[in-house]
Amino acid sequence: METERADLLVRGAKVYNSYFKRFVTADVPVRGGKFLYIDSRRSGAVEADSTVDAEGLYMVPGLIDIHMHIESSMLTPGAFCRRLAECGVTTIVSEPHEMANVNGMQGVLDMIRAGENSPVDIFYGIPSCVPSTSPELETTGGIITCEDMEGLKENPWVACVGEVMNYRTIIRENQLEITRFLKGLREKDRMFPIEGHCPALLDLDLARFLYLGINGDHTEHSMEELEQRFANGMFMEIQEKMLRREVLDYIRAHGLEEHFCFVTDDVMADTFCTQGHLDALVRRAMELGMTAEQAVYNASFTPARRINLLDRGAIAPGKIADFLLLSDLDAFAVGATYKNGKCIWSRGEDRTGQGSMSRDGAERPGTERTGTERPGAEPDRDMHFPESYYHSIRLEFQEQSRFAVPMESDSGKVMVRVMEIQDGSTKTKETIRKMPVKDGFLQWEGSGCLLAAVFERYGGGQAVGYGLVTGDCHKQGAVATSYAHDCHNVLVAGANPADMKLALNRVIEMQGGMAVADGGKIQAELPLPVGGILSDRPAREVGEKLAGIRRAMTSQGYRHYNPIMSFCTLTLPASPALKLTDKGLIDVKACKIVPLKAE
Amino acid sequence: METERADLLVRGAKVYNSYFKRFVTADVPVRGGKFLYIDSRRSGAVEADSTVDAEGLYMVPGLIDIHMHIESSMLTPGAFCRRLAECGVTTIVSEPHEMANVNGMQGVLDMIRAGENSPVDIFYGIPSCVPSTSPELETTGGIITCEDMEGLKENPWVACVGEVMNYRTIIRENQLEITRFLKGLREKDRMFPIEGHCPALLDLDLARFLYLGINGDHTEHSMEELEQRFANGMFMEIQEKMLRREVLDYIRAHGLEEHFCFVTDDVMADTFCTQGHLDALVRRAMELGMTAEQAVYNASFTPARRINLLDRGAIAPGKIADFLLLSDLDAFAVGATYKNGKCIWSRGEDRTGQGSMSRDGAERPGTERTGTERPGAEPDRDMHFPESYYHSIRLEFQEQSRFAVPMESDSGKVMVRVMEIQDGSTKTKETIRKMPVKDGFLQWEGSGCLLAAVFERYGGGQAVGYGLVTGDCHKQGAVATSYAHDCHNVLVAGANPADMKLALNRVIEMQGGMAVADGGKIQAELPLPVGGILSDRPAREVGEKLAGIRRAMTSQGYRHYNPIMSFCTLTLPASPALKLTDKGLIDVKACKIVPLKAE
Repeated sequence: METERADLLVRGAKVYNSYFKRFVTADVPVRGGKFLYIDSRRSGAVEADSTVDAEGLYMVPGLIDIHMHIESSMLTPGAFCRRLAECGVTTIVSEPHEMANVNGMQGVLDMIRAGENSPVDIFYGIPSCVPSTSPELETTGGIITCEDMEGLKENPWVACVGEVMNYRTIIRENQLEITRFLKGLREKDRMFPIEGHCPALLDLDLARFLYLGINGDHTEHSMEELEQRFANGMFMEIQEKMLRREVLDYIRAHGLEEHFCFVTDDVMADTFCTQGHLDALVRRAMELGMTAEQAVYNASFTPARRINLLDRGAIAPGKIADFLLLSDLDAFAVGATYKNGKCIWSRGEDRTGQGSMSRDGAERPGTERTGTERPGAEPDRDMHFPESYYHSIRLEFQEQSRFAVPMESDSGKVMVRVMEIQDGSTKTKETIRKMPVKDGFLQWEGSGCLLAAVFERYGGGQAVGYGLVTGDCHKQGAVATSYAHDCHNVLVAGANPADMKLALNRVIEMQGGMAVADGGKIQAELPLPVGGILSDRPAREVGEKLAGIRRAMTSQGYRHYNPIMSFCTLTLPASPALKLTDKGLIDVKACKIVPLKAE
Repeated sequence: METERADLLVRGAKVYNSYFKRFVTADVPVRGGKFLYIDSRRSGAVEADSTVDAEGLYMVPGLIDIHMHIESSMLTPGAFCRRLAECGVTTIVSEPHEMANVNGMQGVLDMIRAGENSPVDIFYGIPSCVPSTSPELETTGGIITCEDMEGLKENPWVACVGEVMNYRTIIRENQLEITRFLKGLREKDRMFPIEGHCPALLDLDLARFLYLGINGDHTEHSMEELEQRFANGMFMEIQEKMLRREVLDYIRAHGLEEHFCFVTDDVMADTFCTQGHLDALVRRAMELGMTAEQAVYNASFTPARRINLLDRGAIAPGKIADFLLLSDLDAFAVGATYKNGKCIWSRGEDRTGQGSMSRDGAERPGTERTGTERPGAEPDRDMHFPESYYHSIRLEFQEQSRFAVPMESDSGKVMVRVMEIQDGSTKTKETIRKMPVKDGFLQWEGSGCLLAAVFERYGGGQAVGYGLVTGDCHKQGAVATSYAHDCHNVLVAGANPADMKLALNRVIEMQGGMAVADGGKIQAELPLPVGGILSDRPAREVGEKLAGIRRAMTSQGYRHYNPIMSFCTLTLPASPALKLTDKGLIDVKACKIVPLKAE
């Protein structure tokens, strides 16, 4: 046998085998960006141009996250993916429905273009619900039509239909445009994955949803909901909220490992920097008792298969040479990340070619990550979006009088609908409260409720929706954000009109972002000037500012495992029960606008 | 909830769940040819136009055979598939490389066309090795070029590249046309399955084969070969020869169930009628200790996923409603077969619409099948191939003198290469024998060897290759066949020239088929007038005649588990070790013609 040539030889690592779910010491030559051979005999049959000594290290496939949204990080795709390389994630499927809400099809295309120089592979889900409900219930900066969706499907980087969220409507009405699109798609393409979003659907309702060809779900479920999804052939995408011991035990007890994977869905910039990404879920699963061998399988092999990326997800001949070298398997500490057989990141060394991701020599960067981007570095070229994205908050500065809510009442009191925020969930509860009325205005100050207002910011007439908030939210000051799911109109909620005005106008002034005001001062702020939802700064800087917002909200009394997510989804009418858009209060289950005044 | 409508309701069966690998009693409504709901609560929420009472029956997905060749049955696609429905097989992936050898691309297209009215779904593999080696080593009636292959890939019924058989060549040379085709295919399509055929390949050689993107193998392996294939990400297709207890035990012990399926590869008409098809492998696996739940999974779910037919292979909402009703799970006795929610066969009743498959009321047709097609029924319309297929043996009648083999020898003796047939395998062994020479001719009669001759039959110059055969073959008379892998030139082998002439000329007279002669009489014959390889008669008739050939061969001393397969692969130079084509003896490993005379 003549000697074979390779580009790279990874020598002596304990190599993960995705089929036997075990590690085997081997030499692994890579040629043309693909694994050539897993030489467990260490025969020396292949010679390479360069060699990596990996004795004592663990070699696992690059992680694959098939359900996530880059925009949730509030980072541009370039900054996001450079941080991602440090977390050992080499392929993602991102659904840009936030930017689609801001700028329609052009927003999707600009997100794709902004990710073109990424060190990792970014595939895309087709945004299927923009707006999340309908233009009657919320105003967006753009909509995605079925023609847009059909056009996107032809893009070779498009891997699936992104989450179909209007599940209640879709199972009731069969003449919807989206339903026709899905049916047509399934007739033409039996393979194309269609991601679902169907919390709480059960029995015939769930079957109706699946019948349309929607075959994945990443939302949070009870055990009964989980069981029904598995039993009906839905591929389960387990995100952090679902990563519970009983879930993992159930999967193991029933041998369902091949039918699920881990996904991140939404990771914010601060936890991204401190905790990591899909690697954090792998670590969490191991803490919950899953073996490393099993966790790696569900973070690489099953997601690749689910999303039809059969060219990756395993270290085997002919697969794309995306892999990680780990110094410590139990800690899942990523020491180096390789994409297409080339090192794109290693501890203490920058290989991204971007000059902004050099790392300090932290002992366990897998569990405690603190970025060290060069201070004052300019935003990278590929972080840039067209200039128009920097002028997307089409709102005048507002007067304090905007927070006086007119209300008629003969008795001096009125029953009002209130959104009650509950820790542990992004769903709200509708509660009815009695509230004083004086001189034709609702006396909400000091009532135990915050006033919330959503200002339409796309220049379409400056609608404002008013609501009331109580529960585990902040108790003083005000918070404003233009990052507000999914429409990203400007939301402000506060305990007094002065702080509300201050926070709101600061967001307008920044042309997008988040601001917390209290006692007449801005306590924390994060500029998000790109479309009003993304920063153009590096991950660490954004992470630190976002952590500041989080701290300020907490110190004002917000008691929630994720106050930012809780606050930014107050405006999401696809999620129960009572939400607020620029059109007003939305009864989510009934899919309709309801007045502030109850009955 | 309003009442939902369905076309069909299957009530009360024990329904197989492919995800939990268990049976659950449920009502199953079907709408538009797809499963709508698996109602394990039996809520009555769906009303249907018609109902099947399936209380006490087992409902399992239709079986899926992803690696097989219709031509191996010697039946036309129509006749084949009607019998298939009785066996519970609802989807096949057939690779028509036999007809491609006979008539090139036109042969492939005519096979596809002839299957268009089939009651089951026929997908196709692209013949990738026609001829199996090269035109220097064997003469075919047609070749398949890479342009042909690219054209076929666009056909929506084409599901994979059929078995790449020239594995020794392909791993040594990287400038082959097929290699370029495979590389180009993989660059454009990361999903498309490529079937391999690589018995005995190991280590770096196996890796080289996989590196090209070839990712399935259905051939026979040692345990070491099996382990390496699994470990390197090859999907394993277990055919009857591999269906051994140690193989199933190994798979179970290592949790490799998701990475293999059952396939039939080649099923002949007689065993097809008496034993069944993929259902027979399910029964055999159960005899070897596999649970019914596991065997069904590997005969429906994993093959569907392997071949990217994600619209089927499970009884779940949205999947194509292909299913079987079984009265006896342990016997895997198929009582009725449904395709797209419609009954295409049930015991004692003909639903194929073809009028030729009514069944008698046998107690256990699953294990003992004897067809009762209407005697004298005309061949069905869709069994017909164009007239030219009926005149495909372009050979004159031959004289007995064709079996006198000229040979020079000074000593009156010569050392000759002999193909030794061994029971248990279709491979031959090369042995060297001393044989007398007299008057310039080899004295093969009475030598303990048969003379074999392959007559080129495509009108290209009437080449004849001569060889000698010994071992477990017949000891008297002669057998001739125009069904002779893969070129289907006419092979005759016998103990005396008179019977050889008789058998050969009978095959020529029938314009294709098999004939066994002994003592100057035809003992058995099977006409195969369609391209010289297929009958246009119903399965049972062909099965009975083929069984007659088998009996005649056995009574003439052929001692092999499958004498017909053994005999018909004597001409296959893709299978070790010494084979015979119209060009002469082929040393398979060296890929070259070698003389009859050794040294």
